[in-house]
Amino acid sequence: MTYELYYWSGIQGRGEFVRLVLEDAGADYVDIALQPNGDERLMAFLDREDLLRPPFAPPFLRDGDLVIGQTAAILAYLGDRLGLSSKSEADRLWLHQIQLTIGDVVGEAHDAHHPLGAHLYYEDQKPEAARRAKAFRQERIPKFLGWFERVLSRNPHGGGYLVGSGATYADLSLFQLVEGLLYAFPKATKDFLAEAPRVAALRETISARQRIHAYLASGRRIPFNQQGIFRHYAELDGRRPS
Amino acid sequence: MTYELYYWSGIQGRGEFVRLVLEDAGADYVDIALQPNGDERLMAFLDREDLLRPPFAPPFLRDGDLVIGQTAAILAYLGDRLGLSSKSEADRLWLHQIQLTIGDVVGEAHDAHHPLGAHLYYEDQKPEAARRAKAFRQERIPKFLGWFERVLSRNPHGGGYLVGSGATYADLSLFQLVEGLLYAFPKATKDFLAEAPRVAALRETISARQRIHAYLASGRRIPFNQQGIFRHYAELDGRRPS
Repeated sequence: MTYELYYWSGIQGRGEFVRLVLEDAGADYVDIALQPNGDERLMAFLDREDLLRPPFAPPFLRDGDLVIGQTAAILAYLGDRLGLSSKSEADRLWLHQIQLTIGDVVGEAHDAHHPLGAHLYYEDQKPEAARRAKAFRQERIPKFLGWFERVLSRNPHGGGYLVGSGATYADLSLFQLVEGLLYAFPKATKDFLAEAPRVAALRETISARQRIHAYLASGRRIPFNQQGIFRHYAELDGRRPS
Repeated sequence: MTYELYYWSGIQGRGEFVRLVLEDAGADYVDIALQPNGDERLMAFLDREDLLRPPFAPPFLRDGDLVIGQTAAILAYLGDRLGLSSKSEADRLWLHQIQLTIGDVVGEAHDAHHPLGAHLYYEDQKPEAARRAKAFRQERIPKFLGWFERVLSRNPHGGGYLVGSGATYADLSLFQLVEGLLYAFPKATKDFLAEAPRVAALRETISARQRIHAYLASGRRIPFNQQGIFRHYAELDGRRPS
């Protein structure tokens, strides 16, 4: 069965976490964002009155009759089917917790440039964004990435992955999170990665995976840009205070 | 096996979504927040260096050797064990999506009074909170609660529940969300509930459940207050524009 991924065209956004799993597994999927009138098809799907279980927002995945929204739920579903999870219930729960925490960082990375809400332009909330971004850089990035470093250091299996001895969907998502933070806050994130060797190494491991490597070099990988969740405004970045 | 729930004392917060499930099921549990030195025990647990899988933040649930963080993950776990979920994988996925969306509203309800971050007092971000709260009231509450109303209206089973024909953990959480919104934004929420009869009815159904009714009247239910996620600042509330 061909999966259909619905997400807004032109940005990586939350859809990218799903794309990385589909690409890494070599799954058969259609990325609706890359189809003609992708955004219109997405909106028409959300508006369908015959859908008993309408997703709240993109991304959502269609697998036959099943429609799944919420990034972390999609990844748990795909991870089980595409060999990027674990058979153990305890491992799967732990993976899901890690993924939900990655989702929390993603939300805060967005709010760093849009603290007053997504209904206003960045230009209408620049002083507020400067205050929120400073706290994000100085308090939240260290706290979150410090936790991921700790999770990696406590995994009793070798290999440098978050859970068990092989890559899972959460490893792919942590790679994407670090990529996004490096795009948006390069100074702060480089400073932090120098102190988080396991997170930095995992980023290298994932980017070297054969299908991920090919995907990142392909035209299917939308570049980071100023419409996505991770946005680079130089005035919101800064070195960590030493 | 006795469950242990770890959460900050003195507030409902995200821990309350877990409490409602444990209470409704009549589960055997210890609420660490109600024990002597509950907050210290919580912090000591998070600091344990021998924990291979340390939760990022409270709430977290301990079930023997298993420690589960992230509210939605805890609820999915407990729902399966306490008869507040479904045996069907499709139903369970749908329930989890609904729960994750409830979690998104909870996060936005917090940011309505703390748009610049939790590191500052409300008093240090009042004008910014006024702007964000207005958008939350006028755009986000209607969008989110409108979706829950739609989910209820499209459930083909009778009974007025979100999924299937009986109460699940998501129904308990939607009840708690509405209670919180009514505390924090009474004018805006009452206006909206007048247009969302199924959401309003579900709130009544859940509050009348025998164990929930007893719990809400008990000393175990911490009252809403100005330290929690849902806070009432009169200046952040307002009628919906007609």
